[in-house]
Amino acid sequence: MPVGTLANVKTVTPDQLKRCNAEMVLANTYHLHLQPGEDLIAAAGGLHKFMGWDGPMLTDSGGFQVFSLSKMRTVTDQGATFRSPRDGRLIEMPPERSIEIQNQLGADVIMAFDECPPYPASREEVVAATERTYRWLKRCINAHDRADQALFPIVQGGTYLDLRAKAAEELAQLDLPGYAIGGVSVGEPPALIEKIVQATTPLLPPDKPRYLMGVGTYKEMAQAIAAGIDLFDCVIPTRLARHGAALVGGATGKGSRWNLKNARFRRDLTPLDEKCPCYTCQTFTRAYLCHLIHAKELLAYTLLSIHNITELIGFTTAIRQSILEDRFTVEFADWLT
Amino acid sequence: MPVGTLANVKTVTPDQLKRCNAEMVLANTYHLHLQPGEDLIAAAGGLHKFMGWDGPMLTDSGGFQVFSLSKMRTVTDQGATFRSPRDGRLIEMPPERSIEIQNQLGADVIMAFDECPPYPASREEVVAATERTYRWLKRCINAHDRADQALFPIVQGGTYLDLRAKAAEELAQLDLPGYAIGGVSVGEPPALIEKIVQATTPLLPPDKPRYLMGVGTYKEMAQAIAAGIDLFDCVIPTRLARHGAALVGGATGKGSRWNLKNARFRRDLTPLDEKCPCYTCQTFTRAYLCHLIHAKELLAYTLLSIHNITELIGFTTAIRQSILEDRFTVEFADWLT
Repeated sequence: MPVGTLANVKTVTPDQLKRCNAEMVLANTYHLHLQPGEDLIAAAGGLHKFMGWDGPMLTDSGGFQVFSLSKMRTVTDQGATFRSPRDGRLIEMPPERSIEIQNQLGADVIMAFDECPPYPASREEVVAATERTYRWLKRCINAHDRADQALFPIVQGGTYLDLRAKAAEELAQLDLPGYAIGGVSVGEPPALIEKIVQATTPLLPPDKPRYLMGVGTYKEMAQAIAAGIDLFDCVIPTRLARHGAALVGGATGKGSRWNLKNARFRRDLTPLDEKCPCYTCQTFTRAYLCHLIHAKELLAYTLLSIHNITELIGFTTAIRQSILEDRFTVEFADWLT
Repeated sequence: MPVGTLANVKTVTPDQLKRCNAEMVLANTYHLHLQPGEDLIAAAGGLHKFMGWDGPMLTDSGGFQVFSLSKMRTVTDQGATFRSPRDGRLIEMPPERSIEIQNQLGADVIMAFDECPPYPASREEVVAATERTYRWLKRCINAHDRADQALFPIVQGGTYLDLRAKAAEELAQLDLPGYAIGGVSVGEPPALIEKIVQATTPLLPPDKPRYLMGVGTYKEMAQAIAAGIDLFDCVIPTRLARHGAALVGGATGKGSRWNLKNARFRRDLTPLDEKCPCYTCQTFTRAYLCHLIHAKELLAYTLLSIHNITELIGFTTAIRQSILEDRFTVEFADWLT
């Protein structure tokens, strides 16, 4: 899922996004609550209409953002209380409120409001956060008021594999429409992410979508797919684009990251990736992209975002095909070891 | 013509530009010579291929930019010499060089290298610049080496109507494929622009395209069309977009400029202009655009540029139709008085 935090995927129109083969988009409850507010979005007919995206959509609950972005927050069993970074007003966010907001936003998949412990955190802190996340999940389920929205719970447990396993097993018993693994990619080493995903994913129902939040890179995604993950969200394709970087060649099993600002691209009149079907690769050269970046033209971000999104979706599509044809572990061996 | 100074129309892809009904795009010799250089663009197969625009294209000669943007410039009959604002190197630009660069860039229409006097300027200064522009034109014609590119001369003469008339009459005798009026919109009052255009345009061949450079607003364009002008370029649609502003309703004869950042649009769930066929108006609301601007999302610039370009092209298209149906002076009376 390309990330459209504030009801837009940065520098890319929904129309362009469709042509990147994007199927599902993520937006964020915390950010949209602060700006422009769920009331307005509901009045507009929901988030799909508001942002012009008629495909599937998921909203994150805001749990992660409350803990990572808000200052002056207090968390009790009742919920989180924090000051708006926009205007300083005090905002109370019990789990029920997050669900109420997500019901108003109207995405197809909504996420339970969770407590995401930082990395590193003591075992005691993580136990407390994981147990609270479970209690909050029950309240989220009770508060959820729209049968047309699928509510996914989030497995927490920090880097403690036994806590992850316990949380996953408890959640698996609840028969929910899909399951997420959260609280990874928060600063821990990549090898730890892999361990967490490998230990946790098989404990979640294989017949339900399993979603790894905030991931990822080629390697992280390939490893997670090998462990059974079906769904990802990540800002990487659009964020890299705004830094002038392109992801190239993932579907061949050997993807790399290029900085298009680099002098070696100045006179390179080949497409970014001649095998890529995206508008950028079909229309422009590396030299042109390099020129736009040096000229500080915002169009560079759009063109690189189009490519990077197409590339990462093409990467996961190629993996899916290789699994169906039983070639995955051989073809993508570079990422899996 | 939307302006694509540095081989791109800011924040809009060529694909989107087509769907704005844009037919012809302008790029700039001065800027492209400095960055990325005409050699690279020629090696890429010319400007059309380099920037992915297969429609008609015009390059300005750089005359205006040499005089308006360069420091440390000296101008003699031989040509202009200036320091690159990028790296300080000394660049010699005789008229022949501008044409040579434009031959390499490969636009469909190229412009003669002119001396554009500032506003205000004494009559003596303007006489000298206008005479030099004529001498340079002869050298441009001699230097021009591609039969597939149309070379347009530029009428100078500052705000002195008799000098404008003299220049126009001299140029009209040369039987060139089109004619431009330059050196307007350089700081003089709008009423003076109208006078210059009214006094000059009828002296240029009516069976050739007549192009008013660097204009303009609804009013300036309507008045210039009434005087016989066929072609414009202006940064207004894309520049306004980057300031969060939209042009609305020109084809009705009563266009206006809105600042979408304004609080009155925050909860306005109607399209920017329900009669506008553009992607932005067909997909999004004023409240959404207002939200993107407040959230500092670059996508706002793209969406407003798409609208503003469609709007100004729709405006001139509506005028053309009203002329064919003999309704122009009545329907657009607000702009013509």
